[in-house]
Formats: sequence, C-alpha cells, structure tokens
Amino acid sequence: MFQNKNIRFVLINTTHPGNIGATARAMKNMGFENLYLVSPKYYPHSEAMARASGAEDILEKAVVVSTLQEAVADCNLIFGTSSRERAIPIPLSTPREAAHLINNYLKDSNSVAILFGQERMGLTNEELELCQYQLYIPCNPDFASLNIAAAVQVIAYELHVSLDPSSYPASKPSDLVNSEAMERFYEHLEKTLIEIQFLNPDNPRQMMRKLRRLFNRISIEQNEMNILRGILSTIARDKTGK
Amino acid sequence: MFQNKNIRFVLINTTHPGNIGATARAMKNMGFENLYLVSPKYYPHSEAMARASGAEDILEKAVVVSTLQEAVADCNLIFGTSSRERAIPIPLSTPREAAHLINNYLKDSNSVAILFGQERMGLTNEELELCQYQLYIPCNPDFASLNIAAAVQVIAYELHVSLDPSSYPASKPSDLVNSEAMERFYEHLEKTLIEIQFLNPDNPRQMMRKLRRLFNRISIEQNEMNILRGILSTIARDKTGK
Repeated sequence: MFQNKNIRFVLINTTHPGNIGATARAMKNMGFENLYLVSPKYYPHSEAMARASGAEDILEKAVVVSTLQEAVADCNLIFGTSSRERAIPIPLSTPREAAHLINNYLKDSNSVAILFGQERMGLTNEELELCQYQLYIPCNPDFASLNIAAAVQVIAYELHVSLDPSSYPASKPSDLVNSEAMERFYEHLEKTLIEIQFLNPDNPRQMMRKLRRLFNRISIEQNEMNILRGILSTIARDKTGK
Repeated sequence: MFQNKNIRFVLINTTHPGNIGATARAMKNMGFENLYLVSPKYYPHSEAMARASGAEDILEKAVVVSTLQEAVADCNLIFGTSSRERAIPIPLSTPREAAHLINNYLKDSNSVAILFGQERMGLTNEELELCQYQLYIPCNPDFASLNIAAAVQVIAYELHVSLDPSSYPASKPSDLVNSEAMERFYEHLEKTLIEIQFLNPDNPRQMMRKLRRLFNRISIEQNEMNILRGILSTIARDKTGK
C-alpha cells in the first residue's frame, strides 16, 4: 500500500527561510517527512528552526540539492503546485483528485513529488514541464496566491485524509438514552409542568409537542438524563413537600 | 443559500501578530472576510500587515472585541477548533463534516463562528463550552498542533470547496483524438517500423502490443497527433526518398 513516506515535498529556490520551517511543521502535522530543498536562498537558518516549532527533525533530514532534476529523478509521478493558468496547459488536478490518484493507482515502490515554486513567481514553465499534473488548490480566484507553507498544509492535509483515513477522530460513542427513556422523561416533564401549573391539562396548546421538538434535537446521554430527571423530581418534591 | 459572508473566524488572545496577518491571508485566499479578534496581545501591528500580504483589507475591517461572548453573541452555530481530547467531550466534527453541516442545514440568515484559541494552549474548556462542536483537523496524532493560520487555512479550504464548488478549476477540455485516429496512427507506426526494419513482420514479438500499451496511456490531442504523424511521414520519406 502506498504510504506517506513515498511522498516528498520539494521547495524550489525558496526565499524566506521561515517558510521552510513552516513547511516542515505542516508536513509533520500530516505525517509526512520527506522534504527536498532545491537551492534555497538562506538555509540552514534560525528562522526556519523557529517556525518549525517541533518539526526540527524534518529540517535536519531535509535533502538539499542544487537542481530540480536531482530532486525528482527517481519519482514516478510529479505534481506542480500552481494557481496560474498556463499558455501550454498540462492536466489540472485538485489536491483531492491527486490524493485519489495516488491512493488508487500507485504501489508502494512508487515515489511521488509535489513541487512548490519560489514564493513570488511560483513554478516556472520549465519546472512545470517536468510535471504530469498542475496541482490547483480551489480558492478565491481574485486572491489565489497562498503562502507556500499554507499550500503545503492544504495538500498534505488532503493526502493525509485520503492515505490514512483511520486518523479521523473516533467520536466517542456516547451512552445515549433510548426512546423509552425519553418517553418516561416526557411523562415526568408533563406531570411536573402540570403540578407547577405551567401547563393546563385542559388547554395544553401543543406545549408538550413543542418541548418534544426541542429535546428530541438533543442526543441526551444517560448521565444527563439522570440530571434532568433529578431536576424534575426536585421540583415535584418542592411542590408537594411544603 | 448559506454564503461565505455568514461565517466568521474568531481568534482568541492571539499572541503573535504575524499569525493574525497570516490568518487574514488564508481567509481571503478562500473567499472569507469576517475576522474577529478577541483581546489580541499586539494589534494593530506591522508584522500582521506584513504577513497579510495582500489581505490588509481583511485586517482593516477586523472586529476587535474584549470578550469571546461579544464575538459570538449573534451566532447560531459555533465550532471550537481543538485537537485535544477533553474530559467532558462535546461532539467532534472534522472540517469536512462541518462544511457539510453548514451547507445542508443552515440558511442565509444564520451565522457561524469558528473559534481558535491562544497559540500555546488552544481553547480553554470554558471557551469550548460555548461551542456546539469541537472541530478536529485529522492529522498526525504524535504532532497534532497546527500553526493557527495553518488550521484556519485547512478549515477555510474545506468550507470553500463545499460552499463554492463552482470554484473548482474547469480542466480545459482538450481536443483529444478518437480511437479511429489512434488506429490509423498505429497502422502508420507499424508500417514505418517495418520500413526502417525495426520491426520484423515475420517475428513481431508483440512489439505493437507493447507500443499500444504505451501510447494508449496518453490522451493524445489532435495537434500532438499531427506532430507524431508528421514524424512518421518524415521517417518514411527519408527511407524511400533516398
């Protein structure tokens, strides 16, 4: 099965070392570890370490090369991240489509590279020509330039969700009350509301229906029901005890 | 229909003004504009403007308030972003589930708030208690703390994709050749390969099958086919012309 370790993120001619650190953090957040740096302007750099913020290990094993060709020579599938339309277009892919493609068509021995151009200009046409797909992040067409680490974050997130769906949080199964318990609650509630003369049984005016509509929208847990019933019992005791 | 303008991003007690600027950029990239700042430590600040990088308009109309309650008073649905498990859990939602929920259950008059706690600690239990859902970004469980602007970017991206699916890029329909044209190409190719004695018609050894397998994997456009056929014609002319 294709795994996170088969994917590398390649930053080309990055100008701001802070972006390299933020990229490392974004990658590690999503379980990726292979960072390639093609001729970064300043690297290593304290600003990269600062922004890595716990992902310094990704920086330490980053592969620094002088040409893009070295970074992708052994890759089977290359995506070039760019929001710009090109005169000679290559097939477009969204991050979600890319994740689907990687997940369904590649095997464990394949390697994938995802390229990110220099901050100001993005990928050049020559760099994009090495790619099978132009990776396009859906966005506001009037403000389409994402920060490079932000783009890495979105793409890594989509790949992570697709490659490792088990990482979705398991919503804790709650010990929800059943319908019978809800009915007993509504009986108790109605009885109590009559006792305190909030509800006139001769003119109920759909009050219980409205209350049902309200409480039915909540999935009530057992311990919460105990609290509600406790409140009702207390009201009744208060009313009858005095 | 529910729209981007009905969603606000609420940053609480943000420590680094750069993160406020990066958040504004991430929001604008995905077509969101409503930023609320609850007691930011430093704001306004030059670092926020620098990192906004074209999204200064979002900063300029950001609403600065002193309490979270003020920021969300008129909201109908509140998500609290947090990767930490809580002793008293509230329902979990992934960004994709949240987008689905917002898109399908809310109407245009509703407002949604998405909360982001202070950088180091995240949302407090008290802040999370104002929320209907804990918003959980699927990630590496061993390194689950995303930069706040990176978290905004992922969530804004998911909401954008869900709320505005028309912003997906339209892959330009290519003028692809049809199957008949491919067959004529293969005939031309085979004839040419025989002429140049690359292919022995008495012992073809599945060569054409292999070449078909290769070229069939490419979706060939009409102008590309013209080039290929031109090459083949040139080879044949060269062979016969001399």
